[in-house]
Amino acid sequence: MENFTYYSPTLIEFGRGAEEKTGILTFMMGASKVLIVYGQKYVKNNGLLGRIVNSLDTIGIEHVELGGVRPNPTDTLVEEGIKLARSKNVDGLLAIGGGSVIDTAKAIAAGVKYDGDFRDFFYGKKEVREALPVGVVLTVPGAGSEGSGNTVITIEAPEGSDGHNVKLSLRTDSILRPRFAVMNPELTFTLSARQTATGIVDMMSHIMERYFTNSTQVEVGDRMAEGLLQALIAEAPKAMGDPTDYHARANIEWAGTLAHNGITGCGRKEDWASHAMEHEISAEYPEVAHGAGLAVVFPAWMAYIAHHKPSKVAQLGRRVFGVEAKDDRTAAIETVASLRAFFGTVLKMPLTLEGLGIKDADLDKLTSRLHENKGESIGGYYKLTSEDTRQIYELMLEKSVN
Amino acid sequence: MENFTYYSPTLIEFGRGAEEKTGILTFMMGASKVLIVYGQKYVKNNGLLGRIVNSLDTIGIEHVELGGVRPNPTDTLVEEGIKLARSKNVDGLLAIGGGSVIDTAKAIAAGVKYDGDFRDFFYGKKEVREALPVGVVLTVPGAGSEGSGNTVITIEAPEGSDGHNVKLSLRTDSILRPRFAVMNPELTFTLSARQTATGIVDMMSHIMERYFTNSTQVEVGDRMAEGLLQALIAEAPKAMGDPTDYHARANIEWAGTLAHNGITGCGRKEDWASHAMEHEISAEYPEVAHGAGLAVVFPAWMAYIAHHKPSKVAQLGRRVFGVEAKDDRTAAIETVASLRAFFGTVLKMPLTLEGLGIKDADLDKLTSRLHENKGESIGGYYKLTSEDTRQIYELMLEKSVN
Repeated sequence: MENFTYYSPTLIEFGRGAEEKTGILTFMMGASKVLIVYGQKYVKNNGLLGRIVNSLDTIGIEHVELGGVRPNPTDTLVEEGIKLARSKNVDGLLAIGGGSVIDTAKAIAAGVKYDGDFRDFFYGKKEVREALPVGVVLTVPGAGSEGSGNTVITIEAPEGSDGHNVKLSLRTDSILRPRFAVMNPELTFTLSARQTATGIVDMMSHIMERYFTNSTQVEVGDRMAEGLLQALIAEAPKAMGDPTDYHARANIEWAGTLAHNGITGCGRKEDWASHAMEHEISAEYPEVAHGAGLAVVFPAWMAYIAHHKPSKVAQLGRRVFGVEAKDDRTAAIETVASLRAFFGTVLKMPLTLEGLGIKDADLDKLTSRLHENKGESIGGYYKLTSEDTRQIYELMLEKSVN
Repeated sequence: MENFTYYSPTLIEFGRGAEEKTGILTFMMGASKVLIVYGQKYVKNNGLLGRIVNSLDTIGIEHVELGGVRPNPTDTLVEEGIKLARSKNVDGLLAIGGGSVIDTAKAIAAGVKYDGDFRDFFYGKKEVREALPVGVVLTVPGAGSEGSGNTVITIEAPEGSDGHNVKLSLRTDSILRPRFAVMNPELTFTLSARQTATGIVDMMSHIMERYFTNSTQVEVGDRMAEGLLQALIAEAPKAMGDPTDYHARANIEWAGTLAHNGITGCGRKEDWASHAMEHEISAEYPEVAHGAGLAVVFPAWMAYIAHHKPSKVAQLGRRVFGVEAKDDRTAAIETVASLRAFFGTVLKMPLTLEGLGIKDADLDKLTSRLHENKGESIGGYYKLTSEDTRQIYELMLEKSVN
């Protein structure tokens, strides 16, 4: 077990009617005028935005609105938000939506307080020292951004990129953690089966990327991670079968926060290779939802690892998927099959690049950009060079991987 | 799954050398002069207190000391601490020790800011609205007070009690949660096997008292609780066998915080009957360590429940102890046997009142006081009247309970 610092001061307001507390929670985070960030017009049309605004009005909190956030949110909208926030003198952000909306709000929150280009944070040139407080009303569980200090933004065709997009993540200890997250599972009833599934894949990836580690004797974290995965595996088919199953939605939504607020990562090094590999895909093909991309990347990564370093894959399989094989490599291969079956059959996710709608993927380009952005080798549990990652991208072409 | 609010803003500084950060963390919690609360002279003699004071001095934080906290800490010392804190104008508390020390510091922190008798909080006559900030250097894991908003104090022979002590708990949402907890597993190497074992029993009880609930479809909480129990069951024998096994100590200490900071209790009603029944025992027999008392109470409670409402006991056994019986009652009875074997054989804990050193226990008195203090019925998963609790106390006389 490694040394660690853990600080997760996000207040979670969870359950039916939770969004009615938005006004008082915004007041408690010290804001008197907020920039409300949201995605599509849906939150306006379904009345949620109205209810939130009402809750703010009641308590005398002013607001400005910025809609139009899309999946794989861009620096352009962040820039627009920073200008708007400054011109209207807001002193807080309120994100209504999922990861893309929250990540946009966080980037604005940091950018408003910084004289230079906010992209400096994402390129690692500057550390975030100050930010406006951010509150969240979560409507799309999965990204876990409601409980994390991180944000992922796509920089559109930056200089020197030959016109391609770069998806970059900014990780902070706590300064960008939302002050509160309002989570009413009823607000997720209208998510499609596909949205539900991509969220669950994202959650499971967040858990597994902390799970795969060379840090030894981390039983508490391992067992919590396995427990969260078991819960998701049990609840997912219920929510896929009946989108209005409150308790399935509730368990999934809560697991999504715990998957990414850092609690299962305490005391261990982590392995974010799969997320990095996926970010290259959705940067290049912005129509790919992050979670769907992960459904393709993660089993391919795991299949490769099953052959090169099977022990922890085997442990996962034995404890979570009921794999019984005694030999680690056999158990690991069975684990990959179980994960693929869960993603493919239960969650109805694509398992190949073609399934994501990507034909003739340029694997060389993906590989070289990955290592340009992330360095010569990536991963923690197993270090991947460009030779390894090229082979993993190749596995994503196959319908059946072992 | 029930609605819930969760807010756990304690910063955890975990690992070797963590205590060196005490000064900076105390500064960050906004204190310039702290009352250091500790127990026996041990922390002075072993150099820990000196290292902490040095860490405070370096950063210019003044301090006053209050030693002498004992297990089952009393209102007398809290009163002394409040007077001392006021006369020296301290603006923060620093607890060095385990649950008794932390609970004393919390009670002082609340009492200093209150004009009336601090006991009012414990009798439920007043709510804590203000308190000095509390920081913790943990040396005895188990009580989980380093991550909770609760404190338990023994009121010595209050008026109208015919001279007996009353052990009362005060639960707050967050105002009494420590601002930080410094946790270096090396500081626990010198704990005796018995102290280690009582801590582990306390942790397991905290987990199980949240686990037993009538709230349905709480899979995330169930699985996390089961995972923490499995981790404790795996790590306990290592720490019992080798007190300097760093990683076993680390996993146990971290599990102890997670057992009681509320994370496994989100979205469910809880059942604190066993803790209430134990508090009567250690109030009446102050030489009984809380954890040792629980080793006697919990299996007796569970044996009774196994016959009256076996379903969740059976689930616990199947998922944590590898019980295979298909019939719930049989499985529940086997679960009780497994728990007793773990407490008795692995942790070498007493399993009867006699084993606690209590001869000729007055069960009528324990029962009547329990219900005087806690009401006509206690418990959540299964409501216990005085007839039930009398029978459970009786089970604590038996060497073998089924």
